[in-house]
Amino acid sequence: MKFCSNCALPISVKIPADDSRERFVCEACGIVHYQNPRNVVGSIPVFGKQVLLCRRAIEPRLGYWTLPAGFLELGESTSAGAARETLEEAGVEVQIGQLYSVLNVPQAQQVHFFYLARMTTPDFSAGEESLEVALFNENEIPWDDIAFPTVQYTLEWFFADRASGAFNTGLDAQVHCRDLLPKKQV
Amino acid sequence: MKFCSNCALPISVKIPADDSRERFVCEACGIVHYQNPRNVVGSIPVFGKQVLLCRRAIEPRLGYWTLPAGFLELGESTSAGAARETLEEAGVEVQIGQLYSVLNVPQAQQVHFFYLARMTTPDFSAGEESLEVALFNENEIPWDDIAFPTVQYTLEWFFADRASGAFNTGLDAQVHCRDLLPKKQV
Repeated sequence: MKFCSNCALPISVKIPADDSRERFVCEACGIVHYQNPRNVVGSIPVFGKQVLLCRRAIEPRLGYWTLPAGFLELGESTSAGAARETLEEAGVEVQIGQLYSVLNVPQAQQVHFFYLARMTTPDFSAGEESLEVALFNENEIPWDDIAFPTVQYTLEWFFADRASGAFNTGLDAQVHCRDLLPKKQV
Repeated sequence: MKFCSNCALPISVKIPADDSRERFVCEACGIVHYQNPRNVVGSIPVFGKQVLLCRRAIEPRLGYWTLPAGFLELGESTSAGAARETLEEAGVEVQIGQLYSVLNVPQAQQVHFFYLARMTTPDFSAGEESLEVALFNENEIPWDDIAFPTVQYTLEWFFADRASGAFNTGLDAQVHCRDLLPKKQV
């Protein structure tokens, strides 16, 4: 940030009087331009025993496999965002279920949310940000080519919970939380 | 947003070619200035049977009672942010526990997170954003003067879970999720 988005004059980096952190401050009009982490929202689309993954058509991690996910938009809830991203990237109108994982990626200034989601038909189509989309049985998951650690953790939790019967109790499954340290980032 | 923070020229509001939503776009330097919801992170500080609340010294809802909470900062995890806000607003170094509630407030462009938190001593002090801080038994909670619906829901869930024994199972309690509709906002 170089210029004030309100008055176009140059921005200073300083700690405001009532603050303890450096901020982008406009000394001309007085506005503090706060910056905050962003939310990435996605789903775990399930059809029978299979999980839907998308192969990324964009950077970062072009060519690697991911759960459908993207940035939460203004005016949108996290579950609505997860459904929208699933439709945009995989061409699937899922039935969104419970919040399943919340992962902090502070070095990327992001928080990732994944929701359980049910596909009512095995139909899908690659959106503009996907090279291809496919359903995978657990033993077919391309573990060596998963785009992001948050997706890998979420898939690992999902298959472990399914194996332990956690989804068959009639209750919500545990919401899995994890903070990712920089060394775990690809 | 009126001017580009990168080049200081006037901003346009338009739908970029590869997008479906209106964005702030600089047609001079080509940058799209995305805007995204922000995360508010807080805690439910518990000392014995009592819960700590802060009376707000700032708008919005000046004079009303809240759980300690504030905006997540860059480079920070949601749990670390909840601990920081509790220290800043209530002068308490809590032991942060499990994620307890996630509430979407899309009309305010916010997602709220509250963590269970344990106070090891009954010591606290009002920070700059608090008029006063106090410990409350359940029958003393100022329900008519709670600052935000997300705080009210979280407190209601907490006391209901405590009454039902949900915290005595040795397992994590359910993470409570809710989307707040505009009419529920104060």
